[in-house]
Amino acid sequence: MVRRKTFPRNLVVGVDLGGTKILSAVFDPQMRILAREKKSTKAQVGPEGVVSRIAECVQESLAVAAVPHSAIKAVGIGVPGLVDAAKGMVRIAPNLGWHNFPLAKKLTHKLAIPVTLVNDVQGGTMAVNMAGAGRKRNDFVCMFIGTGIGGGLVINGQLYRAPGGMAGEIGHMVVVASGGPKCGCGNRGCLEAVASRTAIVRRVVAEMESGGKSVVRDLCDGDAKRIRSRILAQAYREGDDLVREAVHEACHYIGLGAANLINILNPEAVILGGGLIEALGPRMLPRIEKAARAHVISPTADRVRILDSGLGDDAGIIGAAIAAGCVGKK
Amino acid sequence: MVRRKTFPRNLVVGVDLGGTKILSAVFDPQMRILAREKKSTKAQVGPEGVVSRIAECVQESLAVAAVPHSAIKAVGIGVPGLVDAAKGMVRIAPNLGWHNFPLAKKLTHKLAIPVTLVNDVQGGTMAVNMAGAGRKRNDFVCMFIGTGIGGGLVINGQLYRAPGGMAGEIGHMVVVASGGPKCGCGNRGCLEAVASRTAIVRRVVAEMESGGKSVVRDLCDGDAKRIRSRILAQAYREGDDLVREAVHEACHYIGLGAANLINILNPEAVILGGGLIEALGPRMLPRIEKAARAHVISPTADRVRILDSGLGDDAGIIGAAIAAGCVGKK
Repeated sequence: MVRRKTFPRNLVVGVDLGGTKILSAVFDPQMRILAREKKSTKAQVGPEGVVSRIAECVQESLAVAAVPHSAIKAVGIGVPGLVDAAKGMVRIAPNLGWHNFPLAKKLTHKLAIPVTLVNDVQGGTMAVNMAGAGRKRNDFVCMFIGTGIGGGLVINGQLYRAPGGMAGEIGHMVVVASGGPKCGCGNRGCLEAVASRTAIVRRVVAEMESGGKSVVRDLCDGDAKRIRSRILAQAYREGDDLVREAVHEACHYIGLGAANLINILNPEAVILGGGLIEALGPRMLPRIEKAARAHVISPTADRVRILDSGLGDDAGIIGAAIAAGCVGKK
Repeated sequence: MVRRKTFPRNLVVGVDLGGTKILSAVFDPQMRILAREKKSTKAQVGPEGVVSRIAECVQESLAVAAVPHSAIKAVGIGVPGLVDAAKGMVRIAPNLGWHNFPLAKKLTHKLAIPVTLVNDVQGGTMAVNMAGAGRKRNDFVCMFIGTGIGGGLVINGQLYRAPGGMAGEIGHMVVVASGGPKCGCGNRGCLEAVASRTAIVRRVVAEMESGGKSVVRDLCDGDAKRIRSRILAQAYREGDDLVREAVHEACHYIGLGAANLINILNPEAVILGGGLIEALGPRMLPRIEKAARAHVISPTADRVRILDSGLGDDAGIIGAAIAAGCVGKK
């Protein structure tokens, strides 16, 4: 008879549900990653179809980790949208096209494991707080720069959610009040409209369309929809002027936004993450810091640090795992 | 023999030290005002001279209240600048022209009563929190609109000072990043540069100089330095187009700044105070609220209230008295 190794029920799975990909990872109680898996989201299959894809991704990560289903006490999901964690509902997730979808219930039904939802940016902030550059800091602001710009506040060592649960919408801080470009939210001159990856791509595409030369045209095979942070990073490294200028302009605005947050909150650090920072962090951070310092007013704010999250693409799965761990504590 | 009424040593004096006037008030333990006095600051006499004027103002308020010196346990001073409360030092007070002045020590020496310093805006925020529109709220932002624009954050029921002690420099949040007017801090497009009383006066004066007609010219006897909030309020009430347009523009930017704070902090309320709001609050608040709601993104932020502090000119003395009370508790 073969003796099977037994596992105590103390592992969690963290899932980063993005508009394009699903990441799943198995964590031990020390928050070490035992295995990870990846799958495309295929949001066009609809919420029920995506639930199946998440379930498959979770099962596959368990298989890679070689741990039985019974060892998992909870699954956390970082969702790109507004979440009602108590009810396990996704209220709005624009990138997925979801409205009021009971994700936790549906997935719990499929996996027979408790499922906890967390907003992806709030989860990422908890990850930075517990495992990233915020680990030894009590008061800091996270800025996640990618398709959009999200933020999280840590105050007195805790993620600050505010009475409405929605603190950290830093991407919609207006910084170009007069004549700024239109934002997805309907306003003009939001930070997200001038400094996200989307804003950079918009500028690069517009300049290519009016005759500007850029290696991006080849890198994306002429399909502007394929221009993501990785392509921008490659063009930047190849010295592409058009991409460099657009990225530098974004750095200016991100720094200015960071300075606004520093002036308002006087934190120990502003910590940067997200796809664009993951791809271009070392090129962007010095410029962001320069712009931030030029706009910081208070003398004591001079001590503030501008840092990379240190978590790369793992911020999402770690944040989701932390959220899942909280369920276990109840 | 005349029997003198005896007083327990449980009263405090709150002093609002401004660039133009000193306000002093005597408070009982229930934070009721027993008497108040007012004196011009005459900052040009220098810090030692101003200390004498503060001491006189305090003594006069005691005389009006008919309470003996021995009944006062502490004096609090709200200072328009950067304060080191632990050392009783005024680090920088631009409106007074002070640098590293040991105000607490000097005044304690003159009055023989313990003196506590507090930044005027932080004191005002404590006043709103304990005695004003923030009384029953745990998470809100104060915006004080006057010569400059200052702010205070209340988080979980407490004034949030941040690690550097300087949270709330909302006046230097950049809102007009491209081509905004120059601010006193050296940057361009700060909220203070487009929405303070100073910014309104600058616009009105510039338009009068280029031929614009305004009743302000008569109200200030041709001396632009005399244009304060009261004159603006009178011109506004008289229907002066030039002043109305300038005030409305400021309301737009104050609302936009409020929306940025709401998007970042998701508070229960944004509470407005300061000289300009005291003079023109009922005219300004609806416009500020309209602009704020137009720029608020998160659905739960729709519940946020935009309110007058309810304290008028007393925010400063109340805040200083609260700071003095804290000394008493030690």
